[in-house]
Amino acid sequence: MTILDTATSANATATGWPHGRVGVWLVGARGSVATAVAVGLHALATELAPPTGCTTAGLDFDDVPLPAFGDLVLGGHDISTTPLVHRAQALADSGMIPQRYVTASLAGLEQADAEIRPGYDPSTHAGTQAEAVLRLAGDIVAFRDANGLDRVVVIDVSSTEPIPDDRPEFHDATLLTRALADSTEAVLPSSAVAALAAIESGSAYACFTPSAGLALPALRALAVHRGIPFAGQDGKTGETLIRTALAPMFGARGMHVQSWAGANLLGGGDGATLADPEAVRSKLASKTRGLRSLVGEHVVAPLHIDNVPDLGDIKTAWDHIHAEGFLGSRITMQTIWSAYDSMLAAPLVLDIARLLALADAAGARGVVPELGFFFKDPWGSDVHDFGQQTTELREWAQQVGARLSSEARSAGTAR
Amino acid sequence: MTILDTATSANATATGWPHGRVGVWLVGARGSVATAVAVGLHALATELAPPTGCTTAGLDFDDVPLPAFGDLVLGGHDISTTPLVHRAQALADSGMIPQRYVTASLAGLEQADAEIRPGYDPSTHAGTQAEAVLRLAGDIVAFRDANGLDRVVVIDVSSTEPIPDDRPEFHDATLLTRALADSTEAVLPSSAVAALAAIESGSAYACFTPSAGLALPALRALAVHRGIPFAGQDGKTGETLIRTALAPMFGARGMHVQSWAGANLLGGGDGATLADPEAVRSKLASKTRGLRSLVGEHVVAPLHIDNVPDLGDIKTAWDHIHAEGFLGSRITMQTIWSAYDSMLAAPLVLDIARLLALADAAGARGVVPELGFFFKDPWGSDVHDFGQQTTELREWAQQVGARLSSEARSAGTAR
Amino acid sequence: MTILDTATSANATATGWPHGRVGVWLVGARGSVATAVAVGLHALATELAPPTGCTTAGLDFDDVPLPAFGDLVLGGHDISTTPLVHRAQALADSGMIPQRYVTASLAGLEQADAEIRPGYDPSTHAGTQAEAVLRLAGDIVAFRDANGLDRVVVIDVSSTEPIPDDRPEFHDATLLTRALADSTEAVLPSSAVAALAAIESGSAYACFTPSAGLALPALRALAVHRGIPFAGQDGKTGETLIRTALAPMFGARGMHVQSWAGANLLGGGDGATLADPEAVRSKLASKTRGLRSLVGEHVVAPLHIDNVPDLGDIKTAWDHIHAEGFLGSRITMQTIWSAYDSMLAAPLVLDIARLLALADAAGARGVVPELGFFFKDPWGSDVHDFGQQTTELREWAQQVGARLSSEARSAGTAR
Amino acid sequence: MTILDTATSANATATGWPHGRVGVWLVGARGSVATAVAVGLHALATELAPPTGCTTAGLDFDDVPLPAFGDLVLGGHDISTTPLVHRAQALADSGMIPQRYVTASLAGLEQADAEIRPGYDPSTHAGTQAEAVLRLAGDIVAFRDANGLDRVVVIDVSSTEPIPDDRPEFHDATLLTRALADSTEAVLPSSAVAALAAIESGSAYACFTPSAGLALPALRALAVHRGIPFAGQDGKTGETLIRTALAPMFGARGMHVQSWAGANLLGGGDGATLADPEAVRSKLASKTRGLRSLVGEHVVAPLHIDNVPDLGDIKTAWDHIHAEGFLGSRITMQTIWSAYDSMLAAPLVLDIARLLALADAAGARGVVPELGFFFKDPWGSDVHDFGQQTTELREWAQQVGARLSSEARSAGTAR
Repeated sequence: MTILDTATSANATATGWPHGRVGVWLVGARGSVATAVAVGLHALATELAPPTGCTTAGLDFDDVPLPAFGDLVLGGHDISTTPLVHRAQALADSGMIPQRYVTASLAGLEQADAEIRPGYDPSTHAGTQAEAVLRLAGDIVAFRDANGLDRVVVIDVSSTEPIPDDRPEFHDATLLTRALADSTEAVLPSSAVAALAAIESGSAYACFTPSAGLALPALRALAVHRGIPFAGQDGKTGETLIRTALAPMFGARGMHVQSWAGANLLGGGDGATLADPEAVRSKLASKTRGLRSLVGEHVVAPLHIDNVPDLGDIKTAWDHIHAEGFLGSRITMQTIWSAYDSMLAAPLVLDIARLLALADAAGARGVVPELGFFFKDPWGSDVHDFGQQTTELREWAQQVGARLSSEARSAGTAR
Repeated sequence: MTILDTATSANATATGWPHGRVGVWLVGARGSVATAVAVGLHALATELAPPTGCTTAGLDFDDVPLPAFGDLVLGGHDISTTPLVHRAQALADSGMIPQRYVTASLAGLEQADAEIRPGYDPSTHAGTQAEAVLRLAGDIVAFRDANGLDRVVVIDVSSTEPIPDDRPEFHDATLLTRALADSTEAVLPSSAVAALAAIESGSAYACFTPSAGLALPALRALAVHRGIPFAGQDGKTGETLIRTALAPMFGARGMHVQSWAGANLLGGGDGATLADPEAVRSKLASKTRGLRSLVGEHVVAPLHIDNVPDLGDIKTAWDHIHAEGFLGSRITMQTIWSAYDSMLAAPLVLDIARLLALADAAGARGVVPELGFFFKDPWGSDVHDFGQQTTELREWAQQVGARLSSEARSAGTAR
Repeated sequence: MTILDTATSANATATGWPHGRVGVWLVGARGSVATAVAVGLHALATELAPPTGCTTAGLDFDDVPLPAFGDLVLGGHDISTTPLVHRAQALADSGMIPQRYVTASLAGLEQADAEIRPGYDPSTHAGTQAEAVLRLAGDIVAFRDANGLDRVVVIDVSSTEPIPDDRPEFHDATLLTRALADSTEAVLPSSAVAALAAIESGSAYACFTPSAGLALPALRALAVHRGIPFAGQDGKTGETLIRTALAPMFGARGMHVQSWAGANLLGGGDGATLADPEAVRSKLASKTRGLRSLVGEHVVAPLHIDNVPDLGDIKTAWDHIHAEGFLGSRITMQTIWSAYDSMLAAPLVLDIARLLALADAAGARGVVPELGFFFKDPWGSDVHDFGQQTTELREWAQQVGARLSSEARSAGTAR
Repeated sequence: MTILDTATSANATATGWPHGRVGVWLVGARGSVATAVAVGLHALATELAPPTGCTTAGLDFDDVPLPAFGDLVLGGHDISTTPLVHRAQALADSGMIPQRYVTASLAGLEQADAEIRPGYDPSTHAGTQAEAVLRLAGDIVAFRDANGLDRVVVIDVSSTEPIPDDRPEFHDATLLTRALADSTEAVLPSSAVAALAAIESGSAYACFTPSAGLALPALRALAVHRGIPFAGQDGKTGETLIRTALAPMFGARGMHVQSWAGANLLGGGDGATLADPEAVRSKLASKTRGLRSLVGEHVVAPLHIDNVPDLGDIKTAWDHIHAEGFLGSRITMQTIWSAYDSMLAAPLVLDIARLLALADAAGARGVVPELGFFFKDPWGSDVHDFGQQTTELREWAQQVGARLSSEARSAGTAR
């Protein structure tokens, strides 16, 4: 049985998970990705739609104890107040989400909407950032308690931020803690405030964007100290996914990749965000890092992201690869990828939630390197080769799952 | 150290191989692929060119005892009498092989040409096919003896044949042997006559084309009985290579591939051969088989190969992939691959020769499944996933190599 | 003011047309194209949508007296009984037609549906084909009378037929008339029966498909004799449109096009029809004819149409062009076109209807060569160059329009 | 007979041109384009190669009296001292120019090389720019006299310059003349110094690059005053050529082009030049100007040029076009163009030289708008539509040619 066999397994909606309900707390809970997650989770939990696009619904995960889609409860933070139902209808009108799933999930969307709390907004927040963190963490804890959840996974799917200028507090947890408490200055970017709230609430955490989030060393240290499981960073959805699947092929055949140029066109909110050269800098860097790791530092890799509003949420990426083969022979390959970016991201958010819940239930602490499978920047691992990542994820899930199941059986026997 | 690190290792031209010189006997020794092999082997053996495009020159094979390029001696059969030097110059004029390598290898090409014997030509052969096999096998043995070779690897790089109509002799070695001896009828297609000669001469064998070759069950039985190592079939050079690298990606991410259409344009001799619908039938079948194995039998996979003479030896392949993602969301991917097909094949021929020599030296008998890495039809394996094939090849080579090295050391100590 | 300026002109919905209401009688009135025409005509007539995609809505046609969209009345023949409303909703569900236009046009669709009569079905028709023609012509005349229409334009948008085997009746109107009356044999293919009905009813006619239709010499003679204006044939919607826009560029720059290969992928009903090699033969021929005319008979032009059901109504076409430039230098160009084929056809159907109405009102008889602009096979013209066709259409429309307007003014004065 | 018929006409090498030999003075005479011109001109004049890629070799120009290729004599300025023969061999080694044409033209290249004088180099020039202009103009006059030429056409094919900061002297010929004479400051960019030398020498002039050249108003005034014929600017070779051939198609069909994004990859010297954001600014502007003129100012048209050294002189351009069709239906088209950029430019340089010679012989003064056919920025015309430009060029050449021929006959009769 291989990971390729993606027929819906019983697992997808099973209730064989004895570890309680799991909260999925989304930072940016009213954005495109979150809306797709909300509509989709309802459709999957009610078996209205098959779990296509979900890695964890593959037969390879059949033996792995994972929360069923019906075990997942949505909540989150957002600074937008546009109801999920409105967002979902707009995305249906644009052609991104099929109308029938939106229509079917209206009640579910309203329920999820009721669990969304105001996000941290630096332009209106009055007190210290420490206070903001406390408030956000409190929201998460209240969500957990009110819904009787055994654990919460926080996933940041908000808009990409500019990279902040470096400062000493980013590298020293003590300095940072003091700075947050002592002043009303915005020491941390919003994504890091949200990450800190996740830590404080004792939730598992992953950042699906290239924003600072948990990437600041001081926050990372706090996360390790607090003992939450986490993974990162920046969801590997389209162009980078292809690159990390294809690049090893050239290497395995002894071809020398000389250049790998990329052009990305997209509209939607993400297109506008990424039109900001500062915001995009972090994205471009993480897109190229894996490529260099796979084909060598010498590769010439110009990369552009253009905001083309008329294209809406469909992202089109053209890549042009030039490799040298036998006796210097020219090999060119081009790839053109076209898809709704948010629809690529949404099932991965569900996968990450399920797998971090597994890790948490199994007592994992700190970074989970095998979840690098989902990210452009695979934390805790220097493996970018997608095939290798696939193998490592599968083996990890099966081992952890087997251990957890065995413990559950022992506990059952002991009783 | 990974297989991706393809910097020329010392191995590429090393003389650490203690198992003598290796003959590389090409069926179709004056074709485009063979000519590229001949020019390239000279350039590699003299370190005029780095071994780009050769899998076995990667650092992962650094510890594997393999014949150096200088240990390989070329010979072969062909029904063409056009000297290799003329073919090489024509390919330089067309832009396929850089002129400087042709100029540098003139003496080497003449030497290789002197080792080419007339191929089996059913339109002129007068006696039984058994006599033809004997003559061809004799040529190979004479080549081995005259050049003091420890072993010979026979690789068929001749034009693709039509699939022959089935007959009882193809399935029964006794029947076949009798039929070949008793009549002057052409029972076997030419590729199978050549394969039988390889068996009779005790040489390792691989067929780089989709022709019948050793694929007939009776021949395969004879090869196993004779104890030669062999592998197959039909070199995975371009479009299929990409497909088997990409298809697992869709599966691992739970996407359902609905259709995978392909259009291939090429000129040159191969273009003309493949314009024959009969000849191409076998090619198309083997191209699609791996795809179906990877993404499911349901996939709609129209595939065309067109002869476009003005394109010469450059092959251009366009693939259009449609996959369903989250909530049925449409994902399309297109790939365009453009390269000199013979320049993709040539380094693989050298790789197969070196690895079959390794297998032979290590006493391997019958099919070597791990060499499926090189083929559209991986004999002895149902693995088509290129990443998995890469891992299996590397592990096999390192294990066999380690055993062989250890035996060599023991033998050295014993002496 | 040029034809490029496609801002909606007043003309698009003007009532400046003093020649009465125009019937648009569609053969295949419940197919995808006809459904898009019906929904779109309603949206345009009510100014719910701008007339994007309509040539005749361009400012170049601002001075040309044309029936407003509100002057057009739909009717037609079809052997299907699925109501237009159902077809329209299915096409909205597939994403082809925006839901809001379908929702808005429900009443209009029902009204159009009420004007659809059973088409000629050779498998159920009992009498002679002459009787069938009479019945169909009667339907058209009844439609005209019942709706108080000044004229009717018949446009065939039904599925592509196989090319019928040639027979003497196709070349001799007398023979044909006798054969149709004397026997119950199906002498004519269905498209020709429909064309004959158009002739008999005295309606203008165009065939949007490559089916036989009016292309049979005997029918063409009857049409000329009867004095109807007509144009043809086979709508130039996508790949061929691009080809006839691009090919002149190569010629004007002295580049020699060596090959122009094409691959077409589509699903939907059209995909299934064109998967029939017989049906597709006529399509492939007309696609290549214009190309040869533009770049020379020597061009190597393999062309495939594949039925890929999962792609639905979206057609994707890949073209690969190889041209020789200065000193034989290689130039390659590739084009990839992706669009809903029926949505490309629908506005052209409206354009043809308006322009044939203009021709009819102006007393044109026989073929109107300038309408070749809309067709792969431009009847009455050997011009395939799309730029030249654009100029000729514009000049014709302006001349005919000016004459008609001047006559209208004279008539007004005379009164 | 149409412009599409590019079979070599007798004209291509005819000696029917009674107006003497024509000098072609290239600014940047040792660059890639100039080298291709030199090798190609030799091959064409000696009928070693057909004039593929030359517009003026088409049958439409058969009746137009044009200097034969053998009537053209090469010379020029360059700051490089690398002999043409070396440049040509390097370009042959890179695969750009076929070796046989280089081999055949060695003597011709040496002869052309002997006519190359040192270009104006601001970093070494000591005196005023007026002195530089005088020296350069003197070189051109001396070339004309020494070779007994009836006229000289100066064409700038040197590297693209950054756009200079504006200054009052650019807009006032008197101010400019004074500034050039009075100071040793570099008032003008090099391309303008070269243009001024062309004016002073009374030569026809065209700038094949987007550099300032004759585009400065003061220079343009001087050119008009001096009465030289000229045309411009910035050769329309690849991506822009396609765009101006395709864009009118969308307009003629009433489709609304929403976005037209472009990515260009190239290496070679041009790639490095264009990697300079300042140099590229002028290029990007002129590439987009024509597009906006054709499809409307609203179009979203991000455009990138990346330097990818490993691609050498082959330029690859990807364009992605999104247009709205019927009822807002999405239409996407992509084009991929791949060619040696200098091999596209070289035949156009010969065409421009021949046609400016015709204009000059016919007494044309000032801008020749019909030569806008060759340029991204068509001076004296706002026509960008390539089809329309083709018609206008052909008609102009035939009219001017007919007049010139008629005058020649009158003169002959008068004699």
